[in-house]
Amino acid sequence: MEAERTLRAEEVSQLAELAAQLRVDSIRCSTKAASGHPTSSLSAADLLAVLISRHLRYDWADPRGRANDHLIFSKGHASPLLYAVFKAVGAITDQELVDTYRQFGSRLQGHPTPALPWVDVATGSLGQGLPVGVGIALAGRYLDQLPFHVWVLCGDSETAEGSIWEALDKAGHYGLRNLTAIVDVNRFGQRGETELEWDLDTYRRRVEAFGCQAIVVDGHDLVAVDDALRRARQATGPTVVLARTLKGKGVPDVENQPGWHGKPMKPEQAERAVDALGGVRQIRVTGPRPEPAPPAATPTRVSLELPRYDKGAKVATRNAYGDALRALGSRPDVIALDGEVSDSTRADRFAEAYPDRFFEMFISEQQMVAAAVGLQVRGYRPFASTFAAFLSRAYDFIRMAAISRADIALSGSHAGVEIGADGPSQMGLEDLAAMRAVHGSTVLYPSDAVSCAALVAQMVDRKGINYVRTTRGAHPVLYDNDESFPVGGSKQLRGGSEDHVALIGAGVTVHNCLAAAEELAGEGVSARVIDLYSVKPLDSQRLLDAVRDTGGRLVVVEDHYPQGGLGSAVLESLAGLAVPARVTQLAVRGLPTSGTPTELMDQAGIGVSAVVEAARALLARTR
Amino acid sequence: MEAERTLRAEEVSQLAELAAQLRVDSIRCSTKAASGHPTSSLSAADLLAVLISRHLRYDWADPRGRANDHLIFSKGHASPLLYAVFKAVGAITDQELVDTYRQFGSRLQGHPTPALPWVDVATGSLGQGLPVGVGIALAGRYLDQLPFHVWVLCGDSETAEGSIWEALDKAGHYGLRNLTAIVDVNRFGQRGETELEWDLDTYRRRVEAFGCQAIVVDGHDLVAVDDALRRARQATGPTVVLARTLKGKGVPDVENQPGWHGKPMKPEQAERAVDALGGVRQIRVTGPRPEPAPPAATPTRVSLELPRYDKGAKVATRNAYGDALRALGSRPDVIALDGEVSDSTRADRFAEAYPDRFFEMFISEQQMVAAAVGLQVRGYRPFASTFAAFLSRAYDFIRMAAISRADIALSGSHAGVEIGADGPSQMGLEDLAAMRAVHGSTVLYPSDAVSCAALVAQMVDRKGINYVRTTRGAHPVLYDNDESFPVGGSKQLRGGSEDHVALIGAGVTVHNCLAAAEELAGEGVSARVIDLYSVKPLDSQRLLDAVRDTGGRLVVVEDHYPQGGLGSAVLESLAGLAVPARVTQLAVRGLPTSGTPTELMDQAGIGVSAVVEAARALLARTR
Repeated sequence: MEAERTLRAEEVSQLAELAAQLRVDSIRCSTKAASGHPTSSLSAADLLAVLISRHLRYDWADPRGRANDHLIFSKGHASPLLYAVFKAVGAITDQELVDTYRQFGSRLQGHPTPALPWVDVATGSLGQGLPVGVGIALAGRYLDQLPFHVWVLCGDSETAEGSIWEALDKAGHYGLRNLTAIVDVNRFGQRGETELEWDLDTYRRRVEAFGCQAIVVDGHDLVAVDDALRRARQATGPTVVLARTLKGKGVPDVENQPGWHGKPMKPEQAERAVDALGGVRQIRVTGPRPEPAPPAATPTRVSLELPRYDKGAKVATRNAYGDALRALGSRPDVIALDGEVSDSTRADRFAEAYPDRFFEMFISEQQMVAAAVGLQVRGYRPFASTFAAFLSRAYDFIRMAAISRADIALSGSHAGVEIGADGPSQMGLEDLAAMRAVHGSTVLYPSDAVSCAALVAQMVDRKGINYVRTTRGAHPVLYDNDESFPVGGSKQLRGGSEDHVALIGAGVTVHNCLAAAEELAGEGVSARVIDLYSVKPLDSQRLLDAVRDTGGRLVVVEDHYPQGGLGSAVLESLAGLAVPARVTQLAVRGLPTSGTPTELMDQAGIGVSAVVEAARALLARTR
Repeated sequence: MEAERTLRAEEVSQLAELAAQLRVDSIRCSTKAASGHPTSSLSAADLLAVLISRHLRYDWADPRGRANDHLIFSKGHASPLLYAVFKAVGAITDQELVDTYRQFGSRLQGHPTPALPWVDVATGSLGQGLPVGVGIALAGRYLDQLPFHVWVLCGDSETAEGSIWEALDKAGHYGLRNLTAIVDVNRFGQRGETELEWDLDTYRRRVEAFGCQAIVVDGHDLVAVDDALRRARQATGPTVVLARTLKGKGVPDVENQPGWHGKPMKPEQAERAVDALGGVRQIRVTGPRPEPAPPAATPTRVSLELPRYDKGAKVATRNAYGDALRALGSRPDVIALDGEVSDSTRADRFAEAYPDRFFEMFISEQQMVAAAVGLQVRGYRPFASTFAAFLSRAYDFIRMAAISRADIALSGSHAGVEIGADGPSQMGLEDLAAMRAVHGSTVLYPSDAVSCAALVAQMVDRKGINYVRTTRGAHPVLYDNDESFPVGGSKQLRGGSEDHVALIGAGVTVHNCLAAAEELAGEGVSARVIDLYSVKPLDSQRLLDAVRDTGGRLVVVEDHYPQGGLGSAVLESLAGLAVPARVTQLAVRGLPTSGTPTELMDQAGIGVSAVVEAARALLARTR
């Protein structure tokens, strides 16, 4: 299809000037920083010149405006180009660009982060910007119902990540006509040629097979690019602009040469390049503005009616998750996603009540987490659930979500050996360690349905990555419905001021601690039982008290591997308090198999008898 | 294309009988266990009956035979079918199948694991069996050069995982004609219809676009299946048999019904189903045997010449990784893989010397780790490298590799804030926590080039998941070339028996500890410096000695978030030893930005002055 020739010669020349400025500025800032990726910026400069001048509808003075299009650099290493764009639209000054790029204290970091108000999410781990874009586009089409468009600049190398195909698949499935990926096919990765080089036809067939419309274009033909972007915006489904480009375009020394990834030019070379490109410019471009959007609905404060449970009744905490999520659904900003296991995680209870706010992500946990991140960009409160074990599939996405300062809630069900017969592949025995290590995360692990519901209710308004770990099996409700469970708190379930030992658990092991305390009581041992439902942040005061009252005898029991989990959290907290204690860590030390929950907890040494034994041993050693 | 009618009627009826037995046995064992996935087994029973009778070349009495084909159930939840196959070929008894499936202590676990000699790898986290199959097929085609074929049974739901497309892409790229994925398109996932249901044409287009030959077949037409599998084996490239099937096929109550995923039949219902299928059978099938393979080359003991470095010279540990890996290349069983960053991880030093044993996996970390797992199935010693941050992309694969009891080496470069200007997306600040929590893992973090090379050399023969964390920048060589660095050991770099405090680091922070000790010495404080290069296992004795000699004053410094890393490892170790100590943990507590390594370490509170301050504070508090 012939490109429509809609641009006047003068307009083309303006675009070419702007593209030259974007190139010049990409070179200048990276050379000044002596670090960065100018050649990856040069290849996409023409694409961005056309996009920001004629297609991106964005009010740069109001980056949080609801009607703005979204622009995501999935190839985050092309940050020189992104920041050059910010200069061209007047969002930042030339001085900030050139003097602060990649410097300590600057918001113009090596890869984009939301330290800049025009950046929605951090990128730099490849293959993530597009999946996040899918989440934003889901919000635009199904929730906001606004005509904004999501533009994602991708590298060709990152199409080797499966997450790109998870994203295009979901874009196709959900008919996201408001999403366009622009792939900068410059043929070179970091260490050499990409797998597909300039085989645009294979790219095209892949994209089309995954349900998106492919638009192949010469990425340096400004008129053709303009036409491609117009077609993309007008398409009836998601689009992928496959732009054939030259890495380093415009600078003869480096253009289409290998060995120039992630290398700034030396000052002399940069000077020559800038001269050849026509020198430094201070063009200020004004692109299209969005149509004003109707104001967002004023959030009506809905009263939250949490589920109630009968004390002593056996209820799985995953059920309480589903019940609480459904209750939270009375807030129109609460959204749920699941990885095709909602009948297990109990997210289906939300889906039944609020089908319009539930997104089935099928078995693609990376895309699920990325979609959650995208939804929160648009102000929603996403809850994403799968088995605790399978959230490990999305660990890089969770890590990056923290760098994006995203506010999301994650639920991992079926944690630990407690699941029984399904075996270790389904168990989730490293999730506490992994989730605790995520920057700014909150990690919750309730022992009963009442506390679970109360904690899930708090996740909705918390900042950062909020993780709740739930249990497969049904265990007794321990608390009254009216108790409160602040994040960072804990509960003492048994004991007084004269206790000999403290038994500390979270989740399913709280029940083992209670049974062990009962058994120890028969031997004349008074055991305090502590429910550390908030694994991060941890209730240090409760630990301090326990150390003081028990002569420092603590048994910590967790359905998790011994590294980095609940026991480590307790030890880190005590170290921070400089309180010496004698902590016995009971955790899953062998590789589990199939069996009943009791068999497996006993085998792992976290069952009732192991807790009793550990308490006895601590007392024998320290009496 | 019309299926070749090569089967006699009698053969077809034998296959049908066998398929009925596989169905009957899948029902019997799951009903007895009251747990498992019979309907997911029933849909694939015809496929497996034909495969094991006529195509899978396997000597069941010699599961480690080099010439055997490989059979992987990527849809691991169809374990009843797999174990029914094992009964049909005489590998296990009917009694073991029916009485022990999913029971405590049984090797017939809920999902397959290599506790069974005929199982190469654990499956059950979907989308992983096929990527591992790619690794096995890489070995077959490029290293063993043997004609075995790799058959992978996939579910249709798991094609939503991007990892499946990473696998098919690599299968196409490497021309793996010895690989066949058989996709059981039964249209139902766990909670309902799959995304593509029976849209075989879309599956076909996707498969073909990713460089594989698609063979579409009715999965219950035995003659057609036989023909499809023959064509798959004879194809000139990788093949994907897309089999349209019915979930629960053969049992009218459940056939093609939703709501029957992961649900065993009740005993009465199972009895009716078994009757309808013609009752219990004890058919023993003898499939084709492989052609005898030439014996494996006797491993010649090659002397290892590790690289040598000048003490005091500045050498990045990632360089030492590359040098040591190249040196290890003198062993023909050592293979390297990288995720398109080999010029950064320095795996390129191996690739240059041994191009035939280097596999470029482009930017697909999941596939890279899975390929390593597949290569070790065939007896190779794979080393897979990328940035430490990006190994988080493959965390689920690493977790599953541990359950597979795979022996692999992983290298994560560019760890911590030390990388500087690239910013937090590239930093790897949670890898120690994540890797330590992997079952049976070894975690190494050398501070200099000599120790790095020595540790990498030991990784080659170690069991389990072996992780080495390397540093981007060049730091002084601390050790003599002839020193030994046993895994589980440590080094004392400074101090005597009268030290006031111990400064404990690993990797880059060892250098900060040394500088801090020098500064403290000027104040009359004698500081011991310990290099905990082996983070897991940890040198407990060294810590005990330090506690004893310093009055329990330890400062632990790490370029990692404070949860689950080096500090936690020290605390866990001391807790296990029941030794009270006053441990100050210095770690990266904020979200880092761009900057120089020194600026960022100082900002994070892990630089020299922070170590000095922490030592002073400990002494002030406890003198």
